[in-house]
Amino acid sequence: MFLTEPEVYELLSAYSIAVPRHKVFWKDEIPSWDIFPAVLKVVSREVFHKSDSGGVIFIEKKENFVDAIFTLRSRFPEVDRFIVEEKLHGIEAFVGVKRDFSFLHVVGIGTGGIFVEVFGDVCFIPLKSEREEVRACLRKLKLYSLIKGFRGFKGNESLLLDFLEKLKVLLLENPQIYELDLNPTFITESYVIPADGRAVLKEPEERKEFRSLPENLFRPETIAVIGASSNPKKVGYALIRNLERFRGKVFPVNPKYNEVLGFKCYPSVKDIPEKVDCALIAIPAPAVPDVLKECGEKGVKLAVVVSAGFGEAGREELEQEVVRTARKFGIRVLGPNTLGFMVPSLNLNASFSTTLPPPGEISFLSQSGALITAVVDAAAKEDIGFSEVISLGNQSDIEVAECFELAVRNSDTKVILSYVEGLELGWELLNFVGKKPAVFIKAGRSEGGKRAVASHTGSLAGNYKVFKDAVECRGGIVVDSLEEAFDCCRFLTAYGRLEDKKLLIVTNAGGPGTLAADYATSFGLELVSVDPVLEELSRVLPPNWSRINPVDLIGDATSDRYRAAFEILEKLNWDVCLVIVTPQSMTDVPEIAHEVVKLSERSKRAVVGCFMGGSSVAKGVEILKREKIPVYPDPYRAVNSIRRGVWSVQSSSEERREKA
Amino acid sequence: MFLTEPEVYELLSAYSIAVPRHKVFWKDEIPSWDIFPAVLKVVSREVFHKSDSGGVIFIEKKENFVDAIFTLRSRFPEVDRFIVEEKLHGIEAFVGVKRDFSFLHVVGIGTGGIFVEVFGDVCFIPLKSEREEVRACLRKLKLYSLIKGFRGFKGNESLLLDFLEKLKVLLLENPQIYELDLNPTFITESYVIPADGRAVLKEPEERKEFRSLPENLFRPETIAVIGASSNPKKVGYALIRNLERFRGKVFPVNPKYNEVLGFKCYPSVKDIPEKVDCALIAIPAPAVPDVLKECGEKGVKLAVVVSAGFGEAGREELEQEVVRTARKFGIRVLGPNTLGFMVPSLNLNASFSTTLPPPGEISFLSQSGALITAVVDAAAKEDIGFSEVISLGNQSDIEVAECFELAVRNSDTKVILSYVEGLELGWELLNFVGKKPAVFIKAGRSEGGKRAVASHTGSLAGNYKVFKDAVECRGGIVVDSLEEAFDCCRFLTAYGRLEDKKLLIVTNAGGPGTLAADYATSFGLELVSVDPVLEELSRVLPPNWSRINPVDLIGDATSDRYRAAFEILEKLNWDVCLVIVTPQSMTDVPEIAHEVVKLSERSKRAVVGCFMGGSSVAKGVEILKREKIPVYPDPYRAVNSIRRGVWSVQSSSEERREKA
Repeated sequence: MFLTEPEVYELLSAYSIAVPRHKVFWKDEIPSWDIFPAVLKVVSREVFHKSDSGGVIFIEKKENFVDAIFTLRSRFPEVDRFIVEEKLHGIEAFVGVKRDFSFLHVVGIGTGGIFVEVFGDVCFIPLKSEREEVRACLRKLKLYSLIKGFRGFKGNESLLLDFLEKLKVLLLENPQIYELDLNPTFITESYVIPADGRAVLKEPEERKEFRSLPENLFRPETIAVIGASSNPKKVGYALIRNLERFRGKVFPVNPKYNEVLGFKCYPSVKDIPEKVDCALIAIPAPAVPDVLKECGEKGVKLAVVVSAGFGEAGREELEQEVVRTARKFGIRVLGPNTLGFMVPSLNLNASFSTTLPPPGEISFLSQSGALITAVVDAAAKEDIGFSEVISLGNQSDIEVAECFELAVRNSDTKVILSYVEGLELGWELLNFVGKKPAVFIKAGRSEGGKRAVASHTGSLAGNYKVFKDAVECRGGIVVDSLEEAFDCCRFLTAYGRLEDKKLLIVTNAGGPGTLAADYATSFGLELVSVDPVLEELSRVLPPNWSRINPVDLIGDATSDRYRAAFEILEKLNWDVCLVIVTPQSMTDVPEIAHEVVKLSERSKRAVVGCFMGGSSVAKGVEILKREKIPVYPDPYRAVNSIRRGVWSVQSSSEERREKA
Repeated sequence: MFLTEPEVYELLSAYSIAVPRHKVFWKDEIPSWDIFPAVLKVVSREVFHKSDSGGVIFIEKKENFVDAIFTLRSRFPEVDRFIVEEKLHGIEAFVGVKRDFSFLHVVGIGTGGIFVEVFGDVCFIPLKSEREEVRACLRKLKLYSLIKGFRGFKGNESLLLDFLEKLKVLLLENPQIYELDLNPTFITESYVIPADGRAVLKEPEERKEFRSLPENLFRPETIAVIGASSNPKKVGYALIRNLERFRGKVFPVNPKYNEVLGFKCYPSVKDIPEKVDCALIAIPAPAVPDVLKECGEKGVKLAVVVSAGFGEAGREELEQEVVRTARKFGIRVLGPNTLGFMVPSLNLNASFSTTLPPPGEISFLSQSGALITAVVDAAAKEDIGFSEVISLGNQSDIEVAECFELAVRNSDTKVILSYVEGLELGWELLNFVGKKPAVFIKAGRSEGGKRAVASHTGSLAGNYKVFKDAVECRGGIVVDSLEEAFDCCRFLTAYGRLEDKKLLIVTNAGGPGTLAADYATSFGLELVSVDPVLEELSRVLPPNWSRINPVDLIGDATSDRYRAAFEILEKLNWDVCLVIVTPQSMTDVPEIAHEVVKLSERSKRAVVGCFMGGSSVAKGVEILKREKIPVYPDPYRAVNSIRRGVWSVQSSSEERREKA
């Protein structure tokens, strides 16, 4: 179904959204109309690109009105209705709504005309957003500079927010809207009015239901391994071996064995004499539904289907059967095609990953099992610990959004890190993003990277862009790479998200200090002024110290000088202090590290280290890591992590790096 | 001096640059004029923003012409001349010339109107650029999409290049031009015509002269250390100690000692019984000029002034005296305020850095001494070797551009890495950029990051932007961070810069493969199709392999499967192959590394590793490093390094990362 311009105007009016004064009339009619300049357009479900096909005529003066009608009649003999409306002016904005399968309605907004296509100045706001979140999204746009006033342009932010709120109500009450284009929409200081309208209606698709996960789902007391094996080449062997250190009970299940790796083995899950909380299933795919039925009868709460050969291999039906069976018995299914899950603090490695990472405060949810393998392997080296690691596999039942919600409830978790390829429950995910610091890596941006050529919302919104904008709008952090993700997690586990953005840089190296200041400025962080303590600092620092922030203590600074500076600089009103250290011959790195620790303890504010070099700084790095002070090898990574952790900057800076 | 519109039109015409048909007339004149629509403007050196102040009137039809003249006369009673010209149409481009102190004339070009200010779609082309380089610069612009044809817009690239070439000749022959604004300039398929003109003239400033450095300047056979000391706390001690392993002769100079660290010590440089190629000077600043004079008399070629307390401490005059003295005797001066220099292959550490990095193929030129300390310390850990490391200090005499040129001639150097804060010889530097792979880190971007509000070229061009655009236009690579710089150097020392951009990704992990493909696509790299070998691959790979590039060998791939795939994939026409490895339990990492080495040897093309993880991949990483195959821990860093190394992508992609 398709709504024409007058129909869209009617819909908008019903929600108190202003539309241009207009009149619809039949082809053989000459209406009375006195507002000029005016715009005359065809009304038709068939004519798609009205402007491009000559279906729009601008009329300067009343004397040209009748002529224009005749022209349009002759151009479109088959069209039987026309609309005349006042010609609006102001900032030409692009407003388009798209109903995304995962995130439901998102409102695309940006600078209109060729801006939206050539410059891609558009962001997608999910309906879940609060007014303040919407404001933060708008601030990312170039459109925002026009609204704030620029070279004859000026809009009204508050009216625009009102307009978007009304649009939100309209969309919530009209789920059948699939696309809604209001292009252009004109913004001035006194109004926000769409000057065209077109909508596509389509009944909402049936979506997966969000089903909250039980608190202790990933903390089972007893685990059965169905398909356990004594053959070291089999996954069923690795699963048992990895559970050897688990403090709960482990029950191998395989009719071929009496025992596996010292554990008594049972012919079937039903033969296990105790309750079974969780079953790891590693048997050929076709046998899984029957085994699940047995699990159901046994009262298993969580089935981890490690077996592959389901949807990912084209066998969607088998996967559906698994889900149906599980639902029938109230079992939640992780996978199929999952690596499993791990809870390091419980020594619980319910996966076929060889190593269990150190315990920590990050929930890592990943749709890629191999990524988990790599991360877990790097964890020790990188000093990264996890409260839980969950491999989502095919997400036939348990989805990233559900695990995310559970992680929000998990008191061991400070930061949630998700690697996402696709998800169905985006709308629901947005309820929880922002409740805890959350970092996302989203694969599949190439799709979105393709510059869309058509101007309607649908094609403009790649999945990646919708995901990124929606999640960021709610306060999530979407990063580009795994390394960046862990850099951010380091900061967030230490300090959470900060509200304020005043940065102090203390360095013994001019160059790296300048680079750090460059990054900070281009990211929108604010360099706090050291003027209030200038005299005091000058008394303890060498005469050639920088006298500005970055505070350059000069290359020969030792821990004494760092300490003296810290003690004075503590009085300033900074939110984050970045301490840069390069190893000159007199640099006593470990002692400086201790001063950084003390600063962190005394100031109770965020302190971040950037220790540059190799073996000469290694001990200092260790000291900071031990004290959970984030430390980075490069000023870029340090400042970027700070920036990602500061909410007010994250939401207002438009680019990872400004072009300068 | 200031040129008005008609004067600029005259100047342009003299260089065969088309201008609008126009007529200049006096205030009491009503000229005959028949081309409409037309534009009427004031001609005045006093009226700066003609449009904003009402000094421009558009005239649709002849009947309005006289009225318009009267209006303008009454608005500007003090103006005595007007100009009427044809109204042009087409793509509105911004063209502005700025004479930069360092890079001389750069031509700013981009999309006009608010685009240039709000969207910052502008790049600065140095006059040194060849036609093809200019074309590559233009392709970075959004303007380019309009020129190629977009929604009713279309330009003519070749005419635009002709226009820019004529402008180049004009500027080369008119060095007195300080600013030249041709805004807007209209571009259509049949013309490129500026529709306004304004110029500021100013005599060129006197600039430092480029003085080519002698071939062996940094390879002295004999070195005197003036200010040598037996006191381990003194720089003069560190300098001698660092020279202990030097194979040439070392002469401490200090009237206080007879010997220092076992070397015979001389009261003055003039007392040394042999020739002295190089003198390291570490004495109080005020004594330096006199000592330099003695060096001159002794025939010293290179004076390395380690002493601080010159320009950087406000003592510019003392620094000038040093330069004058040196010039008089034909001595070249490194510094003052330099760390010194190092040539690892000669065991030559003519600096006070404690460690000498391993030899290699990178010339590292740095204006920050502390950065050198950090880099040298990290070098061993990061497997980075250097052909030479030069600390530029205050650049009173020897400048980065001169060292760059020497590094181009240095046959030990494959890649030149420069950390630049400021330079005077930008124009000259551009002669050599592109002659060898060159990576630059430029500090001071915050200045450029500030969005300029005025539209004239001068304020739009921060130094950072001019530097970046100019250097990139000539084929240099400007990166954001030190880490990125070394990532790029790894690729460039192995393969130099590549012309072509076809990438093949082979992986045992779906997620990282997808991320790599995302990065590649957004950077403009081309994923080569594997269709020609689909059948053949399917015979050796498991049924669920990806069947596209990224070639996902599936998580259980061992070196055998990698080898089998490589042997087939070699037939394809790729330029770079990225091999991703994550450590599953069956992954035989070292053996896979050996297969990667073999692929690299057989194919004679660029092969890059991305080995993700910690201890499980460490051996594989070592093997690749030993064989000088670039290897990275994260797909982002791998693909970004490839992208930076591929000339055609570097020059056409507009952003480090596309927003998607």
